[in-house]
Amino acid sequence: MALQLGEIVAALGGDLHGDAALRIEGLAPLESAQPGHLSFLSNPKYRQQLDASRAGCVIVGPALREQALARGAAIVADDPYLYFARATQLWKRVHARPTGPAIHPSAVVDPEAVIGEGVRIGPQCVVERGARIGAGTVLKARVYVGEDCVVGERCTLHPGAVIGADGFGFAPQAGAWEKIEQLGAVRIGDDVDVGANTCIDRGALADTVIEDGVKLDNLIQVGHNCRIGRHTAIAGCVGIAGSANIGAHCTIGGAAMILGHLTIADRVNISSGSFVSRSILKPGLYTGIFPIDDNAAWEKNAATLKQLHTLRDRIKALEKKL
Amino acid sequence: MALQLGEIVAALGGDLHGDAALRIEGLAPLESAQPGHLSFLSNPKYRQQLDASRAGCVIVGPALREQALARGAAIVADDPYLYFARATQLWKRVHARPTGPAIHPSAVVDPEAVIGEGVRIGPQCVVERGARIGAGTVLKARVYVGEDCVVGERCTLHPGAVIGADGFGFAPQAGAWEKIEQLGAVRIGDDVDVGANTCIDRGALADTVIEDGVKLDNLIQVGHNCRIGRHTAIAGCVGIAGSANIGAHCTIGGAAMILGHLTIADRVNISSGSFVSRSILKPGLYTGIFPIDDNAAWEKNAATLKQLHTLRDRIKALEKKL
Amino acid sequence: MALQLGEIVAALGGDLHGDAALRIEGLAPLESAQPGHLSFLSNPKYRQQLDASRAGCVIVGPALREQALARGAAIVADDPYLYFARATQLWKRVHARPTGPAIHPSAVVDPEAVIGEGVRIGPQCVVERGARIGAGTVLKARVYVGEDCVVGERCTLHPGAVIGADGFGFAPQAGAWEKIEQLGAVRIGDDVDVGANTCIDRGALADTVIEDGVKLDNLIQVGHNCRIGRHTAIAGCVGIAGSANIGAHCTIGGAAMILGHLTIADRVNISSGSFVSRSILKPGLYTGIFPIDDNAAWEKNAATLKQLHTLRDRIKALEKKL
Repeated sequence: MALQLGEIVAALGGDLHGDAALRIEGLAPLESAQPGHLSFLSNPKYRQQLDASRAGCVIVGPALREQALARGAAIVADDPYLYFARATQLWKRVHARPTGPAIHPSAVVDPEAVIGEGVRIGPQCVVERGARIGAGTVLKARVYVGEDCVVGERCTLHPGAVIGADGFGFAPQAGAWEKIEQLGAVRIGDDVDVGANTCIDRGALADTVIEDGVKLDNLIQVGHNCRIGRHTAIAGCVGIAGSANIGAHCTIGGAAMILGHLTIADRVNISSGSFVSRSILKPGLYTGIFPIDDNAAWEKNAATLKQLHTLRDRIKALEKKL
Repeated sequence: MALQLGEIVAALGGDLHGDAALRIEGLAPLESAQPGHLSFLSNPKYRQQLDASRAGCVIVGPALREQALARGAAIVADDPYLYFARATQLWKRVHARPTGPAIHPSAVVDPEAVIGEGVRIGPQCVVERGARIGAGTVLKARVYVGEDCVVGERCTLHPGAVIGADGFGFAPQAGAWEKIEQLGAVRIGDDVDVGANTCIDRGALADTVIEDGVKLDNLIQVGHNCRIGRHTAIAGCVGIAGSANIGAHCTIGGAAMILGHLTIADRVNISSGSFVSRSILKPGLYTGIFPIDDNAAWEKNAATLKQLHTLRDRIKALEKKL
Repeated sequence: MALQLGEIVAALGGDLHGDAALRIEGLAPLESAQPGHLSFLSNPKYRQQLDASRAGCVIVGPALREQALARGAAIVADDPYLYFARATQLWKRVHARPTGPAIHPSAVVDPEAVIGEGVRIGPQCVVERGARIGAGTVLKARVYVGEDCVVGERCTLHPGAVIGADGFGFAPQAGAWEKIEQLGAVRIGDDVDVGANTCIDRGALADTVIEDGVKLDNLIQVGHNCRIGRHTAIAGCVGIAGSANIGAHCTIGGAAMILGHLTIADRVNISSGSFVSRSILKPGLYTGIFPIDDNAAWEKNAATLKQLHTLRDRIKALEKKL
């Protein structure tokens, strides 16, 4: 399991300074890298880690060329983080182990499902009638794709993902709930990743839509009839209620919660843990988190918070008096 | 895949104005409906959408009869939303595709489980020893029902649901944790829906109880020995800690969190994202969410919030001086 | 299904007062216990429940010996809660039903996985190539253990747990996301519990590490390259972002969220629902929760909160004037 530096640069480009025959036995972060490792530095503010690292070779941007060369072998690339990403891909490709059958015998794939070329369906996946899986897509294991749902090309669906369970729709009826059958499906574009145990519900009438290049982490809930725009990335434990319309090129931090029937513009960034209760129509970073504190301080502040409105009135009264 | 208007009204009642022979090819929301679609308007505040819609027929309440008739065919019903729900059910029923075997061959059903009449158990479900599944209940796919757990009649359990994993019980012992075996089970009533990847833990000694008509969305955690009262509906990503006692006819918004060992009265509504840290003994709507803001404004307010208690003291001091 | 009191004390120790031949038919909480039940009281502040209980025998600490004896049979033990935990274990052991095969025929275990002695792998588990499962560990059902991941001895993994899905790593590239292959694995120590539908992601380069004795509840997300220290217990619905370094002997309440790349010291307790946005380097209890209120009061306070910074300025101005 090794590559020579020269082989890496031949595959990925970049400007190699050092011995092309150097054997690289793995990739590692700067702080734990050993002489057999290739590492990288993408954020110049950590440049002091460069000198301390034992890495055999580092990937750096042009601005750090001199500092990197002073310590040993280096690959200079315009975007070191992207270069590193591609090095991980190269590493995986070169060291790939033989794969089993395209469709694991324990998977249940309906004969009326349409499976594209080069699709891999892992153990204990379920693909229901009328579902379509695009070319090159991988269902890792224990993935569920419901009836008539469509997954595009080159997608990766991680274990436990559930595509196309019923949306949560009920009409109140004499104190009980009457089921609204969910007649829509889920349509997922190309190059989409869906994390482990993430759920994307089918639409009530129209479809739930995940556009090309969207990346979803684990344990995310996407309600019925949501639309998530191209290349938006969403971290773990996020909840998105029904009919939310989320733009392209957004990032949504972990455990954020997004109410239904609202619109988020393109290029909006939501901080982790924030609760989005209204539409956000301008790009930017938005946050709403209660700051953590030692419990005693929190208790005092939380108690005061419950009277905040009256504090404002008291300030107003004081201002009048003066 | 079509129904005539007359067939719909024959099945569901309501007051038809228009051509009973009109072919309906689908149900659609007002804004995207086409002439072959049946749509509905339940909230009079959206009545201007009615005129703009291209829907071939609309379901409306008596108050909107005139406005609806002015634009074309209409079904007038006392509760248009409920009528719409039943129309989705009719649509699904009429267009049902042939079903496979009652118990999918890939499901693992213990011979000592008791399976009611008309139960459907989908691919890769696991039903353990001593479990009982009531008549007419559907386990969609990849559902787990643990030992001795009971599921009532006409329930729907969606993919990835886990009924009867161990509750989280440990006693501290010399810095480590000693397992408290979870000897109770889960008892689910009739007409309950359990969403995808939702977990309901078995009780420690007594059972965890989900009463009739409860509707649970996806990715919900119900801790051991909780009780959820009849017809309560809980949206996605909610966490309910152990021994919480939740009343009947409540609604709990998405991503709300409910502490253990507390009581929530009947007909309480909890807003999405709220943290319930104490019992709530009176019906009503309860909320606790940090308002989202642009990040710069949030940072200033959050910093001040950490000194809120001292602000109150300063106001008090000012009041004394005056 | 019964044990005599004498058999319980013979197995678990403790000081029995009462008839050793008394038949115990089950364990139950004080408030619902019947004469055939063994119950326990660990927290002296609930001592008035003791007199009211119908339990045939109670486990109490030395301080409550007299009160307990006044009402009937009792087992006096130094730590009644721990004694109760062991009684549940005894109960389960004695009433164990015959088990099926060690590896259920529906499980998919790669021939290159290494399975320790006494391991039990339930229905529809998937254990991938190169994974190692330590002696005495139980995979309940529908558990996924990814390639090269290591699970220690005497662990319990509950249904739907996903060990070793890819971490969420992407490099931005021309408005899209380039995959960072996740080349690390997951290493889980001994005596670890992983709850239902909980996900622990594999590391990007190095491994994600869960140390001995850690207890994880359901629906938890552990991001890539996290480390969770020995005997830390984490309640349901918690999200832990990548590269968080959590100490030993911590407790993290349900639905708390922990940002990535931060450090939490040993013996830190995080309240349920709190958002940990910075490192916590001193033991103690930390909290950050918006207090719940009736909706009208919340609305007023939340509106004021958005102007909190200006309130502070107004107080400052008033102070200057005086």
